[in-house]
Amino acid sequence: MTARATGETPTDRRGQRRATDSKWRTAVTCIEPNKILLRGYPLDEVMGRLTFGEAIYLLLVGEVPSPAIGSLLEAMLVSFIDHGATPPSTLAARNTATAGAPLRACVAAGVLGFGRYHGGDIEACMQFLHDGMEQVRHGASYRDAADRLVLRCLESGDAVPGFGHRYHTRDPRAARLFQMALELEVEAEHIQMIRAVEMMLEERRPENEPPLPVNIDGAIAAVCGDLGIPASVADALFIISRVPGIASQALEERDRNEPMRQIDPKDHVYDGQSERRLPERRK
Amino acid sequence: MTARATGETPTDRRGQRRATDSKWRTAVTCIEPNKILLRGYPLDEVMGRLTFGEAIYLLLVGEVPSPAIGSLLEAMLVSFIDHGATPPSTLAARNTATAGAPLRACVAAGVLGFGRYHGGDIEACMQFLHDGMEQVRHGASYRDAADRLVLRCLESGDAVPGFGHRYHTRDPRAARLFQMALELEVEAEHIQMIRAVEMMLEERRPENEPPLPVNIDGAIAAVCGDLGIPASVADALFIISRVPGIASQALEERDRNEPMRQIDPKDHVYDGQSERRLPERRK
Amino acid sequence: MTARATGETPTDRRGQRRATDSKWRTAVTCIEPNKILLRGYPLDEVMGRLTFGEAIYLLLVGEVPSPAIGSLLEAMLVSFIDHGATPPSTLAARNTATAGAPLRACVAAGVLGFGRYHGGDIEACMQFLHDGMEQVRHGASYRDAADRLVLRCLESGDAVPGFGHRYHTRDPRAARLFQMALELEVEAEHIQMIRAVEMMLEERRPENEPPLPVNIDGAIAAVCGDLGIPASVADALFIISRVPGIASQALEERDRNEPMRQIDPKDHVYDGQSERRLPERRK
Amino acid sequence: MTARATGETPTDRRGQRRATDSKWRTAVTCIEPNKILLRGYPLDEVMGRLTFGEAIYLLLVGEVPSPAIGSLLEAMLVSFIDHGATPPSTLAARNTATAGAPLRACVAAGVLGFGRYHGGDIEACMQFLHDGMEQVRHGASYRDAADRLVLRCLESGDAVPGFGHRYHTRDPRAARLFQMALELEVEAEHIQMIRAVEMMLEERRPENEPPLPVNIDGAIAAVCGDLGIPASVADALFIISRVPGIASQALEERDRNEPMRQIDPKDHVYDGQSERRLPERRK
Repeated sequence: MTARATGETPTDRRGQRRATDSKWRTAVTCIEPNKILLRGYPLDEVMGRLTFGEAIYLLLVGEVPSPAIGSLLEAMLVSFIDHGATPPSTLAARNTATAGAPLRACVAAGVLGFGRYHGGDIEACMQFLHDGMEQVRHGASYRDAADRLVLRCLESGDAVPGFGHRYHTRDPRAARLFQMALELEVEAEHIQMIRAVEMMLEERRPENEPPLPVNIDGAIAAVCGDLGIPASVADALFIISRVPGIASQALEERDRNEPMRQIDPKDHVYDGQSERRLPERRK
Repeated sequence: MTARATGETPTDRRGQRRATDSKWRTAVTCIEPNKILLRGYPLDEVMGRLTFGEAIYLLLVGEVPSPAIGSLLEAMLVSFIDHGATPPSTLAARNTATAGAPLRACVAAGVLGFGRYHGGDIEACMQFLHDGMEQVRHGASYRDAADRLVLRCLESGDAVPGFGHRYHTRDPRAARLFQMALELEVEAEHIQMIRAVEMMLEERRPENEPPLPVNIDGAIAAVCGDLGIPASVADALFIISRVPGIASQALEERDRNEPMRQIDPKDHVYDGQSERRLPERRK
Repeated sequence: MTARATGETPTDRRGQRRATDSKWRTAVTCIEPNKILLRGYPLDEVMGRLTFGEAIYLLLVGEVPSPAIGSLLEAMLVSFIDHGATPPSTLAARNTATAGAPLRACVAAGVLGFGRYHGGDIEACMQFLHDGMEQVRHGASYRDAADRLVLRCLESGDAVPGFGHRYHTRDPRAARLFQMALELEVEAEHIQMIRAVEMMLEERRPENEPPLPVNIDGAIAAVCGDLGIPASVADALFIISRVPGIASQALEERDRNEPMRQIDPKDHVYDGQSERRLPERRK
Repeated sequence: MTARATGETPTDRRGQRRATDSKWRTAVTCIEPNKILLRGYPLDEVMGRLTFGEAIYLLLVGEVPSPAIGSLLEAMLVSFIDHGATPPSTLAARNTATAGAPLRACVAAGVLGFGRYHGGDIEACMQFLHDGMEQVRHGASYRDAADRLVLRCLESGDAVPGFGHRYHTRDPRAARLFQMALELEVEAEHIQMIRAVEMMLEERRPENEPPLPVNIDGAIAAVCGDLGIPASVADALFIISRVPGIASQALEERDRNEPMRQIDPKDHVYDGQSERRLPERRK
């Protein structure tokens, strides 16, 4: 995210140095008449050559992703794209839609409906895994480091960040993401650490309590960690990934329901497509 | 966007009919324990098989796009992804960032910074082209229909929606999008109509005025029209496409500048990567 | 709202004319070191001398309100301050609060939860009354003008702006506001017109339908009209007046409920203070 | 903010206990057909009897303020109502306005433009003063407690919360608020503590540095502390107080400037009313 001196900035030419030194700088996108450079690449050349997901990575990280990183990134963005009608962010957007507000107001309200308890686990889990890996770097085994992390949560009463889900006992998105990381050979120490924590949680689980599996926040945190993506960019990816879901839910609210209705999140039924398989060419 | 009766809804089973008839319905995403269906497709199967762009189309339109539509969609999403530091939406986000607000607040403020004069042209241009095609359907030539559309704007003093840009005299994104639509063989009557309008604007251009080329809003409106994408979905695509740019600009504001600074939009300089070419494999 | 040349602007001094002519202008608040002028009045002198309501009027309209206008303004701001837990704006704020977002995000989401069907009636009703008074100015009686306005709504199928409420058959806030306007002797043609419309709606009411009384939006529209407050300022007053309610509801959501709960708007019960009277000194 | 059992809740009546026990509760506003109770008071009786400022206190705190508290509250709300065209929140709102967004979107963007560095000092300063008073309770003098607080900031490099301003070397709003607190006889230990800190900062000030006076955040924090207003309510008061300013600035942007302009915060000039005195009756 930080700017690197490139040797091509206008400050090189002596006569302009004073003038540009007082200006503020941006390294994201260069706009000139009839030319747009996205991190240096002409935008019209990027169109048709990079996918939207790859262009998101280029924008946030500064470089075109490798094929493996690109695939994982698309999968992460897809994994979070929607989670039905009941997340608070979706309900904030639907309540805004039922009042007859424009779509951009609904989307903004939806984005505001993330908070400490909703979408905040990615950054917390990245810090958590980072703490564990610090211990490994100082000689602890993954198993011992994981044990200490879990005990710390148990003692403080805090939830273990990146684990557990109010609907799922096994988060299908997390499992798929780990499988892809393995196949694409990007699995490294963050994933190893989160798996060690998962095992430790299972060992220490009281008999009458349900298992506490890695959730999608945890999986994304671990994968982002292994890809070298900083926490602030992971947070951006999370927000970006859910906007299409928020927009779809707001449009559906507007199209299928009476305005000014009272939305009970529990009182709905799914009446869409029944389960189906992707067309052959996409497998 | 409207729901179709699928025969598989829970209302089929007689005993539940009364109970579910009073419930509200959603057809976007089905959530069951350990299962998430996105428009009918298991989300973990979609991960790694559809790109984020294709999943966005699936979510908004209800079906997996054909390869040609998928390619154009990615290009449209990429075309709008960022436009530097000066659009009002970006400045709303940067001013929010300089106050030390969290990233989600910056993104929400950025999304709110779209308005009638900024990002509103896609829906207006779709209506404009639609009006022209109504005339064609009633027997007018494209040329005559375009002439009437242009005259209507000239008489009312309204801007021609989808034309002109404060920086570009030839919008490189629009040119590239039309070229792709041609190559992918999806070019149809909306693109034909917008080209007729462009020609008519050139013919009627007073000698001392600059040309008024199709801008990216106009190009997206025409392409969405030819792809059968409704205006509300085109509006959603526009919002979705710019969120990564807003997030990148907000993160850069936070990382590179002092908090609480006074942001003069004109007083900046680009110090990022100089112009470069995509790696060979992406051409 | 428009600026008047005051003779004291810096452009008066010849030498600076060029410099300031290119600057943009503001007439709301003047900031100098250790001095803040609110529409010309030193802010520290305003503190303790004008109420918050009066200062709001000063800021939006440019002058200190007369005692009668000040009283009505306070009453209008109070009338809209909250309407319980079920308006969409309040639910957008509560859903944002349950996700653990900061208060400012909850308030922003709440403000976004106003829309065409919620809070939009004030501006529509002001236009509606204006149309009626145009007819009166051209010779129609209030009764005839009202009849035409009502018929126009009946024919187009549009709701009559400023009339009807989903809870109240007689809106106690509207009744009180009209009573105050009468007592304070500011009642004029807008209130006369809205009363004529109310009478006409009652006359034309089908036997089996409930009465359609003036609601608080209609009352505020009529009073603002008689006070010479433009529609854009009336819209601002509406937003300002509900922010305390949104904030209170968001704080209560945070203080009294579990995070990440599913908020069913219909499933709540009031457990606050039972009905009571204001202390003697306030009557 | 927490609910107190009042003996009048529906749970008292045995037959309803089960039904209401599963419901969620609210104590802010009771809505029944043709009746609205604000913290127990009929809203139509509150109109004309409490000012907007007093009704805000009633809503947030639960009771009608005493005359002294009411006066201070109005003064606090007025003190923050606007600070010209340059705060980040105002610029977020103005950039939203120049894009042609509706007023409610501008206000929401403005509210989002508060952050850690802008408007966040009230809560931080309340905690800071609280820490000092803990020491006083354990036997320290105000002077010693203040000295330790200041040293802690100096050692950590943190700013002293509630002190200093980028424009003012003596904040006229803070001075006026303390004067009013003294006259209204509500000055107590929080104000005493902040004055002790101010004195200590002056004593320890290096010769070449400017004085660091109490700013309005600090004054509000101290006064709220002495009034027993909790930090979350103080935060709400801050947001509420600035909304009229944000709305006024957004309306002015819309009325006086070209759409889609590039807003340089430093490049403006005040052309409003020159300094004037309040009418005699308001002194």
